[in-house]
Amino acid sequence: MSERLLVIGGDAAGMSAASEARRRRGPDDLEIVVFERSSFVSYSACGEPYFVGDYVTEIDDLIARTPEEFAARDIEVHIRHEVTSIDTEARRVAVRAVDGGAERSEPYDELLLATGAEPNRPPIDGADLPGVYQMHTLDDALAVRWMIDEHAPKRAVVIGGGYIGIEMAEAFDRHGIPVTIVTAAPSLLDPQLDPDMGDLVRAAAEAQGFDVRTDQRIECIEGDDHVTAVACDGPDRIDADVVLLGLGSHAEVWLATQNGIPVGESGAILVDDHQRTQVPGVWAAGDCAEARHRISGKPVNFHLGTVANKQGRIAGVNLGGGDEAFPGVLGTAVTKLCDLEIGRTGLTETECQALGLDYVADTFESTTASGYWPEAERMTMKALTDRATRRLLGAQIVGGAGSAKRIDAVAMALWNEMTIDALINVDLSYAPPFSGVWDPVLVAARKARAILGDP
Amino acid sequence: MSERLLVIGGDAAGMSAASEARRRRGPDDLEIVVFERSSFVSYSACGEPYFVGDYVTEIDDLIARTPEEFAARDIEVHIRHEVTSIDTEARRVAVRAVDGGAERSEPYDELLLATGAEPNRPPIDGADLPGVYQMHTLDDALAVRWMIDEHAPKRAVVIGGGYIGIEMAEAFDRHGIPVTIVTAAPSLLDPQLDPDMGDLVRAAAEAQGFDVRTDQRIECIEGDDHVTAVACDGPDRIDADVVLLGLGSHAEVWLATQNGIPVGESGAILVDDHQRTQVPGVWAAGDCAEARHRISGKPVNFHLGTVANKQGRIAGVNLGGGDEAFPGVLGTAVTKLCDLEIGRTGLTETECQALGLDYVADTFESTTASGYWPEAERMTMKALTDRATRRLLGAQIVGGAGSAKRIDAVAMALWNEMTIDALINVDLSYAPPFSGVWDPVLVAARKARAILGDP
Repeated sequence: MSERLLVIGGDAAGMSAASEARRRRGPDDLEIVVFERSSFVSYSACGEPYFVGDYVTEIDDLIARTPEEFAARDIEVHIRHEVTSIDTEARRVAVRAVDGGAERSEPYDELLLATGAEPNRPPIDGADLPGVYQMHTLDDALAVRWMIDEHAPKRAVVIGGGYIGIEMAEAFDRHGIPVTIVTAAPSLLDPQLDPDMGDLVRAAAEAQGFDVRTDQRIECIEGDDHVTAVACDGPDRIDADVVLLGLGSHAEVWLATQNGIPVGESGAILVDDHQRTQVPGVWAAGDCAEARHRISGKPVNFHLGTVANKQGRIAGVNLGGGDEAFPGVLGTAVTKLCDLEIGRTGLTETECQALGLDYVADTFESTTASGYWPEAERMTMKALTDRATRRLLGAQIVGGAGSAKRIDAVAMALWNEMTIDALINVDLSYAPPFSGVWDPVLVAARKARAILGDP
Repeated sequence: MSERLLVIGGDAAGMSAASEARRRRGPDDLEIVVFERSSFVSYSACGEPYFVGDYVTEIDDLIARTPEEFAARDIEVHIRHEVTSIDTEARRVAVRAVDGGAERSEPYDELLLATGAEPNRPPIDGADLPGVYQMHTLDDALAVRWMIDEHAPKRAVVIGGGYIGIEMAEAFDRHGIPVTIVTAAPSLLDPQLDPDMGDLVRAAAEAQGFDVRTDQRIECIEGDDHVTAVACDGPDRIDADVVLLGLGSHAEVWLATQNGIPVGESGAILVDDHQRTQVPGVWAAGDCAEARHRISGKPVNFHLGTVANKQGRIAGVNLGGGDEAFPGVLGTAVTKLCDLEIGRTGLTETECQALGLDYVADTFESTTASGYWPEAERMTMKALTDRATRRLLGAQIVGGAGSAKRIDAVAMALWNEMTIDALINVDLSYAPPFSGVWDPVLVAARKARAILGDP
């Protein structure tokens, strides 16, 4: 007898799960139905700042697959449909069309929560003024892009110095709009980078002409029928006719919490390593679900497309009759600010301190190619090593073209719980256009070893 | 009582060993003396084609440290001194100045052979004609560069399609000199790449305007008082006023074999994992020494600066009173041909076949960034996986800017003997300017898994 899988949320995790489950079970064996609240499924949220910044000219380029393409694979997608409640006993959900119409009840055998994350919206007075935007769905990206094209704003303020904050600052800059970044944090990309590394990003932002203000609390956003300024605690008042809120995001879990599906320490839905929640028949994956940090061992909740796709795939494997565990995360991420590339993986020094770890930090300047190569770019790397186990704990890279993706070699080392003593001899590649003969990843191990001595 | 370490050969392995030993033992405890046959120590042989090609304008840029700089660290360097024999019983070597003078005898307590590799010089008639060059020492690089600057050659032929061959073809091209690459192999970069991947390099070479001729045996090099042409078997005769021999290299082991120091299966000096030869008091490291291939388990002899530096360091650790084993090699290497980047690690398909392995190969097209990113470059990746153990065996990458260094993540996976099932979930980085959400390294694992099924 055929089963029915309902998926709530049609982006990375939800559609990865649906696709993987479909690969493993035909439509006669498993019916798959997806409800997505927005107008789009399977889109690249990470690409949104680049659409605003005109790196990407067509919004459609950010859409990997349309509902019709999923239909052709026997995955039934209902966009603009919101699930409002779950009856986990009866195995039914209540769903309604966003554009109106009666709520209806839909049965399921298995239910996957892939509701994602939603932007943090602190209660800042004026945050609802016209001209104030967030960056979450494709509709947000379209709105900001339209505003730029139609109204040619003269002054942008980005509130928040995280990934979205710096990427959107670049987007405004690419349209020639002067940008101020205001953040309550002491440095940019906090807590993704340690302050010393974040300060390198700040220097690049300032070199690009951005006005960067750290340690600033927002008092209110001013304006009458449109934003005119951002007022900070203290004397600062920054003129603005467009404001972007980039204040981070949190797992969207109200559907879970209102219906008896437990969340974990991180605030995201508690799942086992097969992506099962604690309620029979209910699964969760992606930004709304917890993951185990492989270095700290702690439950964490990162909002990264990579993790969402992988957790979604794992859910799909297991819903599809396979048996596979999600092995956890490192928080590996890359981004760029204009020509500056940024990569990070594992724990930061700040996180090591918070966890009470006994670590050594080594930070050094290197280059993306042999020092004598004409296009060699500066690259700063910071690595953290556990003093007792001598295992690498994390690393951060900030530098010119060719820097960021080097973090993957470190991530692979972290994944395999390598000590600096093992890492030091790994056969990484070298040629003058690409690296020094001792790759910076190996240099990091040598520097840590110089501090710690022989094993 | 103080000991005396003699090092024969003052490039990567020799000077790494000397430096590491010195870090660990002061000059009162260990005297360190280096004999180097050429005029330079501690230079970047890998940088030579880029000096010829004018990426690097000063030959001094290729020199990491001078004899004077080593002297300041209490490492005594004698350039233009050749060791001609070794008495391993009496622990003495015979050494003479290249520029003349009597042979003298020098005692040692420990002796490190770091004699490197020398270019293959097959008995081709005319190979000694003026205008025919090899690329080995800095003197070779200076000679070719001088020839180009002073004589403005009209037509270059590169014999050999390996790393040196393609790098030197690019170097001639950068001076506007039309280039023909002639190789006896069926494809370029054989055997470093499989023929299917080598053909991508060929296509790029031809797009650059190079005349590439594979499966060609050289009959002779023609000319009277200067090279005028290269004659191939069959009708081909290629005009040339400069010829570069890039026919590979072999470990320089005559000093070892003539003095009872055994070589191994690979033709290079047999060493244990501490870089000791089978003769007490004699060590070897770098291009002249064997290494164990971590995937095949076989003794191999790659001539790569990375390996030489690492083996040299290990020798230096052990000579310096430490205890560290060299864990083997993967043959990881990168290079470029104009704008095309090339990376490889582990076993090729050809090598898998020769070893009788039961493997699956997956080759696929990817991009160096999200498909919608305006600067995304094509990138082809080939991965080999062992059918029974499901472990990755090797990979090759050929593609545009940003391709080559990705091989390091694969090398790290190979080093840790990862299965494709483990690899598939590794937390590698993603952002639209740098990668698809499934990094190509993970896609390789997914493709292999699609062939092999669930574990």
